[in-house]
Amino acid sequence: MLNAGPSAPPELCAPRVLEAYEHGLIGTAVRRSPLVASDLAAWSTPATALVSSAIQRDPRLFEQYTWAPRLVAVVSDGSAVLGLGDVGPRAGLPVLEVKCAFFKRIADLDAIPLVFSDRRIDAIVAALAALRPSFGAVSIEDVAAPGCFELEQRLRDTLDCPVMHNDQHGTAVAVVAALRNAALLTGREFAAMRVVILGAGAAGIATARLLATAGLPDLTLVDTRGVVGARRRDLNAAKREAITYTNPRGLTGGLEEALRGADALVGLSRATVAGTLLAGMRPQPIILSLANPVPEVLPAAAASVGAVYATGRATAPNCVTNLLTVPGIFHGALAAGAAQITPEMLLAAVDGLVRASLPTLDADHLVPDVLDPAVFACISAAVAAAAPVP
Amino acid sequence: MLNAGPSAPPELCAPRVLEAYEHGLIGTAVRRSPLVASDLAAWSTPATALVSSAIQRDPRLFEQYTWAPRLVAVVSDGSAVLGLGDVGPRAGLPVLEVKCAFFKRIADLDAIPLVFSDRRIDAIVAALAALRPSFGAVSIEDVAAPGCFELEQRLRDTLDCPVMHNDQHGTAVAVVAALRNAALLTGREFAAMRVVILGAGAAGIATARLLATAGLPDLTLVDTRGVVGARRRDLNAAKREAITYTNPRGLTGGLEEALRGADALVGLSRATVAGTLLAGMRPQPIILSLANPVPEVLPAAAASVGAVYATGRATAPNCVTNLLTVPGIFHGALAAGAAQITPEMLLAAVDGLVRASLPTLDADHLVPDVLDPAVFACISAAVAAAAPVP
Repeated sequence: MLNAGPSAPPELCAPRVLEAYEHGLIGTAVRRSPLVASDLAAWSTPATALVSSAIQRDPRLFEQYTWAPRLVAVVSDGSAVLGLGDVGPRAGLPVLEVKCAFFKRIADLDAIPLVFSDRRIDAIVAALAALRPSFGAVSIEDVAAPGCFELEQRLRDTLDCPVMHNDQHGTAVAVVAALRNAALLTGREFAAMRVVILGAGAAGIATARLLATAGLPDLTLVDTRGVVGARRRDLNAAKREAITYTNPRGLTGGLEEALRGADALVGLSRATVAGTLLAGMRPQPIILSLANPVPEVLPAAAASVGAVYATGRATAPNCVTNLLTVPGIFHGALAAGAAQITPEMLLAAVDGLVRASLPTLDADHLVPDVLDPAVFACISAAVAAAAPVP
Repeated sequence: MLNAGPSAPPELCAPRVLEAYEHGLIGTAVRRSPLVASDLAAWSTPATALVSSAIQRDPRLFEQYTWAPRLVAVVSDGSAVLGLGDVGPRAGLPVLEVKCAFFKRIADLDAIPLVFSDRRIDAIVAALAALRPSFGAVSIEDVAAPGCFELEQRLRDTLDCPVMHNDQHGTAVAVVAALRNAALLTGREFAAMRVVILGAGAAGIATARLLATAGLPDLTLVDTRGVVGARRRDLNAAKREAITYTNPRGLTGGLEEALRGADALVGLSRATVAGTLLAGMRPQPIILSLANPVPEVLPAAAASVGAVYATGRATAPNCVTNLLTVPGIFHGALAAGAAQITPEMLLAAVDGLVRASLPTLDADHLVPDVLDPAVFACISAAVAAAAPVP
């Protein structure tokens, strides 16, 4: 009945996968010792009233004596889930539970998934604003572009806590760090690289923007209709804005034109790229092909042009994924008491991931393993240090 | 700096209590084995996509493969917290964390606290409706009367899942069971008892209603201005409705008039009752004095009239509290797949608590200990059996 599809490796048979998700991946837990009679004293009036009264008298104690200020709300409407697209909030929930499980295991951050069946941006913003004391940060996941841009901006404007759309900025940080590492490996000057980004959705736009913030002057965005440029009349607001920091040579055409003379191709799309298109790239090109589960550029095509090559597949080597970056970014922001996640904090996260990469850096270890504990620690420390003083 | 107040027993010194709440009582947990490399296969694409696709194709699988359908959202605006009153959502959060901890420890139910800084009923209902797939039941806590009545009704009308205000129905179930047990102990016919309820807030009204549903014809509600009756012109809607099932003898006056010839007094107020007022009750009266931390009727006054006596203090014997009832009611409702919690299910919960009480029933064990595992099991089974077939 269930079918893992042609791309699933044989060991991931459907019954075994489903078994791993039985009743969900996450639960709640009680921090204190097993409940015994003596706990009832601490868990009942007047003890509980004493804690409430203390917070009422001194609101700063809310931070110290409740779970909420360090709780990440992982928020989605299920409109852009993995490679599946719009599956809705219920079918999208397992992906959010995975993210919550990663937050806990990697960063020891509590995180709860909140899925919205009402997709109006007004409704989502109003609900989270009404619930504001219940959490300490908002992690947006799997929301389709271009709505995700407005949702993130509205939440950042409304909530006095860190808000980040991971598919944008978590991915962008991982990509920029991987490009810096690849520049080191191939003897390029990072800031002088020509980078082509295939896919102008949430991840593509955010990656272009972070590369521009990092000082790269020659970026080209390509979507399903070709190079994003000033002559196009079919662009949404996010793509129109991207023209201000991409395509300085006024390119037109498609991926082939964009790749001519490029140092790096970053795939953040659902496209398939024929190997022949790669011939125009500079020697020893850098190819980060992050479509999942089937990368835009297949391994053989990348090998045929001698590329430094990475995918978004967690079970393969060289996995460039926001799982590397998101736990550390939120942990650092919360540890610093930051009211928002700034571009400076994102660039600091890039520094942190590069630092964690150096000890093992080579063509097969462009970024560290997702489970390498140094990754989280380096990113969190860098982000916290870059946060504005609250 | 912090002061536990004159009613706190000496062992509950403020520093020790606060220490027990450091960083909150609850957290999240990952259900699966420690995260190792082989878990990445199950936690990443294409495995996660397989689970999402399966739910998309067959929405019934949402029940089986996510945590949400068994998750209780514990909801409050902090407007009526313990004996403290309106402390707001932040200072109210520790009380909700206690409830979540009890759900987990007693019923193994996951529960998350959601506190609302926006108290408009429309805002709370809209937020929970927008978030509907995120949880399986709503437990309302610490919301002031009379707003709590409208909030509960609106949520029941809007959400297709069990919704219950615990301070109303959880307390009512515990009180009705304790009164049935006390009737057994004192040789009374339960349904023939005259019961006076002091306090016409959330708990008082709900207890009167459940006793009426259980068939008791002679109930008297008393609030700060005296007996609730038809001649009063200062009654809110909930109290006006209560006239239809209370005060059959058309009493007027105060607590003294109400207690004349009464079998039982149920205190659900913040009042203090002078011992002399108890003289008019029938011999061997039943006094459930549940104000917390200072009961309306002090132990010495109850002893002086030879009463069967209980309080709401979890650390004292004979504690009549909704901690006894709420975990089992929600567990039973969720196990049965009930779309709501009906009056029949509440009466079944009373049966369950009475059944769990019988083995140890005496004047010092009017209800079992909160930690007695039979309580939860008996109530859950009874509630599930009484639930309408979904």
